[in-house]
Amino acid sequence: MNLSVNSPALYGPVQDDLRLVDDALDRISRVENFPALTDMLAIVLGATGKRLRPAIALLGGTFGEYQAERLVPLAASIELLHTATLVHDDVIDRADTRRGRATANSIWDNGPTVMLGDYMFAHAAELVATTGDIRVIRLFAATLMKLASGEINQDLSAFDSRETLKNYFSRIGGKTASLFAAAGEGGAIVSGAPEDQIEAMREYSYNLGMAFQIVDDILDFSGDEAQMGKPVGSDLMQGTLTLPSLLLIERSPVNNPVQTLFERRDDGDLQTAITAVRESSILDESHDIARGFRDRASDALAGLPPTAARDTLADLLQYVVTRSS
Amino acid sequence: MNLSVNSPALYGPVQDDLRLVDDALDRISRVENFPALTDMLAIVLGATGKRLRPAIALLGGTFGEYQAERLVPLAASIELLHTATLVHDDVIDRADTRRGRATANSIWDNGPTVMLGDYMFAHAAELVATTGDIRVIRLFAATLMKLASGEINQDLSAFDSRETLKNYFSRIGGKTASLFAAAGEGGAIVSGAPEDQIEAMREYSYNLGMAFQIVDDILDFSGDEAQMGKPVGSDLMQGTLTLPSLLLIERSPVNNPVQTLFERRDDGDLQTAITAVRESSILDESHDIARGFRDRASDALAGLPPTAARDTLADLLQYVVTRSS
Repeated sequence: MNLSVNSPALYGPVQDDLRLVDDALDRISRVENFPALTDMLAIVLGATGKRLRPAIALLGGTFGEYQAERLVPLAASIELLHTATLVHDDVIDRADTRRGRATANSIWDNGPTVMLGDYMFAHAAELVATTGDIRVIRLFAATLMKLASGEINQDLSAFDSRETLKNYFSRIGGKTASLFAAAGEGGAIVSGAPEDQIEAMREYSYNLGMAFQIVDDILDFSGDEAQMGKPVGSDLMQGTLTLPSLLLIERSPVNNPVQTLFERRDDGDLQTAITAVRESSILDESHDIARGFRDRASDALAGLPPTAARDTLADLLQYVVTRSS
Repeated sequence: MNLSVNSPALYGPVQDDLRLVDDALDRISRVENFPALTDMLAIVLGATGKRLRPAIALLGGTFGEYQAERLVPLAASIELLHTATLVHDDVIDRADTRRGRATANSIWDNGPTVMLGDYMFAHAAELVATTGDIRVIRLFAATLMKLASGEINQDLSAFDSRETLKNYFSRIGGKTASLFAAAGEGGAIVSGAPEDQIEAMREYSYNLGMAFQIVDDILDFSGDEAQMGKPVGSDLMQGTLTLPSLLLIERSPVNNPVQTLFERRDDGDLQTAITAVRESSILDESHDIARGFRDRASDALAGLPPTAARDTLADLLQYVVTRSS
């Protein structure tokens, strides 16, 4: 199968309702009597991503009573929360572009951009509250705590070459997989799915999120600059150690290129480190680890009834580990 | 009466339960397995403020069935939300000190500090969700949207001497009074107070918040630097026009010192502007306007039953318009 995010089949039974999520995000970006905020929101929400998280929320909602009027706000809320974290990330990283488009902080000052992210968090909270489900609201809040503490952890360990693989997995669990988990679990909860299926969706989504982030970290080394919309090696340049660079450190304890890069922060050192990763078996090994998480996600699917939605969840796993951008 | 925040009588019947709010905030600042985050939270939450907003939340909770186990988390949530906005404000303003203490952003980089604020928002959302009251949760989210859009409005109008009084009142309504309103209204809702009393608490708290912010803006011109913990005229220096500087612009349409300051951004111009405000009747007039909001708040109290809590709310109004720091 050769699916892509542009393939109409990728999101299966929830493909159409994803358009309702887009409509909801579009409505959010129109703020009465505040044209400046409307402009800011249109720019950050208009950079349409893969909508993978909202799709998982909707798919999770098929295992109980599927109510679009409650699931669509939840899915939009998850996407809004995700986009808000990107807005704050870009302020922190002083990023000029994301997916090839200008970032909010490169257009406005940091001040309005930080507040734009806050506004989006608040709006996401408002949307999730419209589900009327306290359990999902608490899941949402707990997830935002994990996202933020995962990012703090990442920032505080920047340029620290003693960073460990264990810390890496815990960090990406917090900053990426927890939001995927909240999407799948949240959709299942809102639909009133049985507890064991809620747990299966959580387990599936968390492990899919882990695989997703590892592939992201691989693509930062192997990806095509034009397709990714950001320079190769940008994580390393910002002092963030990911799976490939941690494996590189592990196997060259003396004089490894990452340590040299962190000490001198020179572009030539960056190229040396990128080449060292690419010319080794590190990216293959990283893919193996991503596939390990994919397999755990796949195992979790066994706990769900055999529906079209479950087939779509299985297809998404394949997409996540084979994507090239 | 000469009450101060240190006076045990100031918060009347809820004085003792405010200690439970402090305990809750203290528990929040201890994060398992994350000493760095614990340190950050201890610093920003340890700078004990007036606890005015949590006190109003608890007082609002006396008009129905007062349940400390639901009101204390709400009050702590309001204070946490308030402190989170201060953390983000300080990043934006690049402030080194607040109330005479080092700010988070002056100790850590902007990155962890922005995320610290996000973490605090999330924790505030988690706390408010423990009330189990969807209406209060939605009020909380709507309030955060107002706070953030009020700040965006302030940032985008910085150094714009065409700023109007009307925009000023709408801005401080969003960035300050809305949180006071949410505190009073939220407490009343959680306690199940009658609708007309919920509305009276909202009206009281909103107008008290307006008076509070205007007095804050007056103190930025008239206050004592050591007592305030920040330099006199710091709003103007950051390009923020407040009631006194807007009145100054209004009465000297040609060659007014504020316009000159905004064009040259020179410290001498700042002193000229401060002196022009202090030597005119502007601060008295600003106090009159603050007292106008106090009177509206006082009128709203007529809609509440005559209890010890209502007397305390009346005392707080006096404190807010007469405070000197």
